[in-house]
Parts: sequence; C-alpha cells; structure tokens
Amino acid sequence: MPIYTPFTPVIAALPSTVPFVGPEAQERDSGKKFRARLGANESSFGPSPRVIERMVKAAPDMWMYCDPDNHHLKVAAAAHHGVKPQNIVVGEGIDGLLGLLTRMYVSPGEPVVTSLGAYPTFNFHVASVGGRLAPVPYENDRESLDGLLDAVRREDARLVYLSNPDNPMGSWWDAEDVNRFIEALPDTTMFILDEAYCELAPASALPAIDVARPNVVRMRTFSKAYGLAGIRCGYAIGEETVIAAFEKIRNHYGVSRMAQIAGEAALEDQGYLAGVVRKVDAGRRRIATIAGDNGLQALPSATNFVAVDCGEDGAFALKLMQALLARGVFIRKPMAAGLDRCIRISVGLDHELDILAEEMPKALEIARAG
Amino acid sequence: MPIYTPFTPVIAALPSTVPFVGPEAQERDSGKKFRARLGANESSFGPSPRVIERMVKAAPDMWMYCDPDNHHLKVAAAAHHGVKPQNIVVGEGIDGLLGLLTRMYVSPGEPVVTSLGAYPTFNFHVASVGGRLAPVPYENDRESLDGLLDAVRREDARLVYLSNPDNPMGSWWDAEDVNRFIEALPDTTMFILDEAYCELAPASALPAIDVARPNVVRMRTFSKAYGLAGIRCGYAIGEETVIAAFEKIRNHYGVSRMAQIAGEAALEDQGYLAGVVRKVDAGRRRIATIAGDNGLQALPSATNFVAVDCGEDGAFALKLMQALLARGVFIRKPMAAGLDRCIRISVGLDHELDILAEEMPKALEIARAG
Repeated sequence: MPIYTPFTPVIAALPSTVPFVGPEAQERDSGKKFRARLGANESSFGPSPRVIERMVKAAPDMWMYCDPDNHHLKVAAAAHHGVKPQNIVVGEGIDGLLGLLTRMYVSPGEPVVTSLGAYPTFNFHVASVGGRLAPVPYENDRESLDGLLDAVRREDARLVYLSNPDNPMGSWWDAEDVNRFIEALPDTTMFILDEAYCELAPASALPAIDVARPNVVRMRTFSKAYGLAGIRCGYAIGEETVIAAFEKIRNHYGVSRMAQIAGEAALEDQGYLAGVVRKVDAGRRRIATIAGDNGLQALPSATNFVAVDCGEDGAFALKLMQALLARGVFIRKPMAAGLDRCIRISVGLDHELDILAEEMPKALEIARAG
Repeated sequence: MPIYTPFTPVIAALPSTVPFVGPEAQERDSGKKFRARLGANESSFGPSPRVIERMVKAAPDMWMYCDPDNHHLKVAAAAHHGVKPQNIVVGEGIDGLLGLLTRMYVSPGEPVVTSLGAYPTFNFHVASVGGRLAPVPYENDRESLDGLLDAVRREDARLVYLSNPDNPMGSWWDAEDVNRFIEALPDTTMFILDEAYCELAPASALPAIDVARPNVVRMRTFSKAYGLAGIRCGYAIGEETVIAAFEKIRNHYGVSRMAQIAGEAALEDQGYLAGVVRKVDAGRRRIATIAGDNGLQALPSATNFVAVDCGEDGAFALKLMQALLARGVFIRKPMAAGLDRCIRISVGLDHELDILAEEMPKALEIARAG
C-alpha cells in the first residue's frame, strides 16, 4: 500500500463518486448512439450561423492566449444589459462561476440554502468547499421563495441559490415575487439568481437588473438559448465591488479565446435568438401534446425542456426513463421526493420529437409491465 | 456605504490586484497594436492544419455539452504516454489543474515550496487557498533542486513545484537529477512537475513516466509547442488514486468540446509537432544572434523563449523592455532578484524577429540614455 500525500480535511471528507454522467458515457456503456438527444437541455437548433462563421474564422488564431480580461465580451454583455463592464465577470459556464462563489463566501461547515432537487452542480461546489447544504423542498413544483427565506434566516446563511426559470421543473416566479424575495433578504446573504433559461421565459419573469444592490448576482449563459453549451461560457452580473472580488481567485485564462469570440458574436445576433425562442415554444407544445396523447401531464415550462408528470411514483417514472434510454431516447428526470414522479424532456429537432412520439407508448408499456 | 456579504477569511485577506495583464490590455492602454508578439511564449507557428480543420468541422456542434469525462482526449493522451486513461486528468490549461492541486493539498496557513521568480500563476493559486509560499532562490539561473528539497524538509510542505524546462529562464535539469530529487522527497510531499515546454527540450530532460509513484504529478499542455494556447487545454499524469481525487472538485464541464477535439487532433499530428520543434530551435538561435549582435548574452533555452542577460541591473532590463514595448515589440521579463537582469523573448515568426533585430539597437540606446 503506497503512502499518499494527505489531502486537506475538506477534500479528504468528500466522496469520490462523480455526479456527472454525460450522454457520451451512456453511449459508451451501451455501445449504441442515442437516436434522440433530449436530456441535457441543450439547444438542438445550434448557435447562430454568424457565430459558427466567427468560430471558423478564429480557429487558426487559437495559438494566441485568450484575453484574461475577457474585455470584448464584457463590453458586449454590459451594453446588452445596460450596465458597465465592471459589473460583469465571465466564467467557464455558470458552473465555473458557481464554484468561485462558493469559495468566496462559504467556509467549511457553513450553511448554504438551496431547493431540494435543484441544480446539483451547485450542491457539488458547495460540498467541494466543505459547506453544509440546507435544502428547502419545492412547493407545487416551484422553488419555495418563502421556504428559502425562512431557511436563510434560520441558518444565517451567506449564500442562497434560486434558478428562475427553474431546472428541473421548468417552473418560474414573476419578477415582482423575486423582487419581494430580494427586498426581504438580509444584506449579509448573497443571492445567486441563476437565469440560465431566462431568454426562453416570459419577460415578466425577469426582474430589472439593479447593479447597485451588493447582495444579488445574476447568472447568464450561452449554453442554453444561444446554443453554445459545448464552448463553456457564461457570465455573472453584479455590483462592482462584488464582481471585482472574483479576480482574486478565478482562473484568469480559463475562458478560451474561442468562447469569448463565440459569446460576443452570439449576443450580436438577437434576431437568431428570437427565432430559437419561437422554435423552443413550438417544441414545448409538441412535447405537451405527446405527453397528453399518452395520458401523461406536461407541466408548464419557461425553459427549453418540459417536466412531464407520469402520474405515478418515482419508481415508475424511473422505469419509464430507463425504457426510453434503452430505446435510444436520451432524457433525464428529477430525483428529489415529490418531483421524482416526473421525467424531463428537452426540446429537440422535429425528427427527434417524432422518435419520442413513436417510442413513448412502447416505453410506457414496458414501464407498466415491469 | 452599502453592506456587503462577508467573504471567507481567506478571500477577505487576498489583494484585489490582478497579476494577469495580457498583451491585449497593453494594446488597449496604448491604443496601438504590437508589431511583434514575442512576450507570452505562445507558438506563433500555430496549431497543425489538421487541428484547425477539426475545429472548423466541429464549430456547428458546439450546441452539445462537452463530454465531462474528456474520454477521447484521455484515451489519446494515455496511449501517447503509455499509461492508462485513469492516469490522466484534463483541465482548463495547466493553470486550472494547478488551482485544483492547491485546493486538494493546501489548507490555510500551510507552506508550499516553489522557486522565487517561478511561475506566478501557481503562486496566485496558492494564495487563493490561503497557503503560505516558501520561495527558494534560483542558483545559476536554474531552479535549485537542493534548495527546494531543503525547503520541503524544513517546512514539512505538502506541495512543491518545479517547472522543467523552466519559465522564465528557459533552463532545465536532466532527468537523472530530477529523478534523484523525486527519490529524496518525503512520501507526504506532492511534487508538481510542470513540463509545459517539454516537447521543446532535449529528450534527456524528461524522466520516464512512473505512474506507480503517488507523489508526482506531471503537467502537460497544448498551449506551447502544440500551438493551442487560446483553446485552454492541458492535462496531468499521475497515480490513479491521486488522479481520481481531482473528480471531487474539478469543474467537470470546464474543458470545452472544442478544446477536447483540438487536443486529441493535436496529439495525432506528431509530424507537425516535429516541424515546430525545428522552427523553435532556429528561432532560439536567431534570438541569440540578435542578442549577441547587440552585446547582450542569450542564456541557453529548452523552451520556446530565450532569456537574454542585459548585462546590467534589473532597472536597466526593465527600461529596455519598456523601450521595446513602446516600439511595438511585446516581450516580458523576470522580476525576481538575480533573474531581473534579463528580458524574456519568445520565438516568433521570421518577420517578427526581423522587427526585434531592427528595434533592439534603438531600444538599447533609449534604455542607456534614460
């Protein structure tokens, strides 16, 4: 038995199980490619052709380091939101920024508030700094603003997380409710408002951006509606002093030159984005129809996926998901109690939703039989 | 004065000054583009045309998330080095992996050994976890193996860092010296052997890879000889259990799909790499000639840059660098005492070295005058 260099206590206490299993790993395990990729809330419509053109043009330039300041992308994002570049920090997707925020605000043993069943990557990052999760159950398939607020007060938590619209349920709160939540929060609690899906939500779900407020950080990404999940680029919007603090610990060269170029180009093509929003809406309706045709109930969604209530318990929904996976349809499902009666289906291309429509009755039969 | 959510003690203690100033920021400040980009140790020869072709082909696929396992790239790197994929972890450049290692092994207040004037990004990451640097002076323009070993023992350090070949001096140790150092290290000290420049070094500088040894992690990158600095991709090679521990905290979706594809393609084109190595060698000799023609002394280099001894003190070398910068020649320089008499010039394209040759006498004149 070799002698190992000891890890820090926080790292030593962490499990070595990996919560991230991509569709590629599932394909390698089964030896078969999925016929419909409807599980990762990607945008099957892809990025704007103008974005692709810019990436193609930039490929030979990849010998140059990226600008560690992300200057052009920050300027573009700031203009897009009517804030200053000093209010923007760019990261390797929202995931990267969530990791930094946990390091900035959470010491080992300290509580962090989120919803039970909400974004698991946030929980992963909280665990990685030794934080203690204080999870709040969903209410009526929505994250509970009152419950989160109660937990923040009870725990005196430094961080609270909300996704709006929400993953994995696709539900949302209106801006006025979110603003009421913000007003009620203690100054000493940082609010992470993850708006990864916001471009696909009703405008009424988006609070006005207020960068004077030092305890709210808004998270945006190019991974969803902009169709750039594979390029790893997101950003946070917040008060200047808070944003400046990311500089203390971020990987300054972490966001690739390609990602910065793609992100900037994506912001420029709002016309393309509008088209994606329309296609996603049509796709959501199609998924709801497929669900209904099979006696299942699609929940309302403000995202690029639809949570479908399978009408029975979590075990049944799990069997249904597994039957769909086995038949070449990649989907995922919520696992938390109460939410686990659902499966989660991302909007895909028409031919993928055709495959879903074709396979759903067969998968249901298998799930009911076994 | 707004009330801010308090940072952790480690973060609160960190300076908000940013150590990373890219050439783009300097260009924005001066309002002028550099005429020769010779300061960031990039490969001006660019990536292989086959790599560019693969990136171009992959651009429309960027709507898909990257494989969080980095499976194909790990398999390719493992085959390249004759190890198992379980011995490889991929990160957002070596920088990203250095950040993870400091989080894995260094608790606040604990000592970390490195050389005074060695890679500043490593120091940045040590600071970001509240580690305490125990820096060891260079000896004869090389990192001091004996000095590092003494410091490890004196401090009972969990981490020790060495770059071989070395940045910023371009010097190197032979494999047998490095192996002697490894043999002498305590089991409870993890050795980070940063080999970012190894493809450009004599084969004799590279110890055989031994993944049975649990306290050595070898760092490789696509940023240097492979010409992909902008894509952000590097990897670490080590013992399985150690490599598995990265899974506990790494940003699993941090390395873009584009980076994984580019890295895999780069490894495949070893013929192109061999050509770059030859061009870099010619470039180093050209820089040495330019230095000699101006009465300066180029130090031997096993990297894609050359440290040039300006023959006077740090203040003079600084003036020379500033004069070159002002004349459109982007270079950098070591700042640590003893090394700071040098400037550091990356190998560039022929026309860039022509500009260097033309500007050096003028810059020297300015430095001597002022």
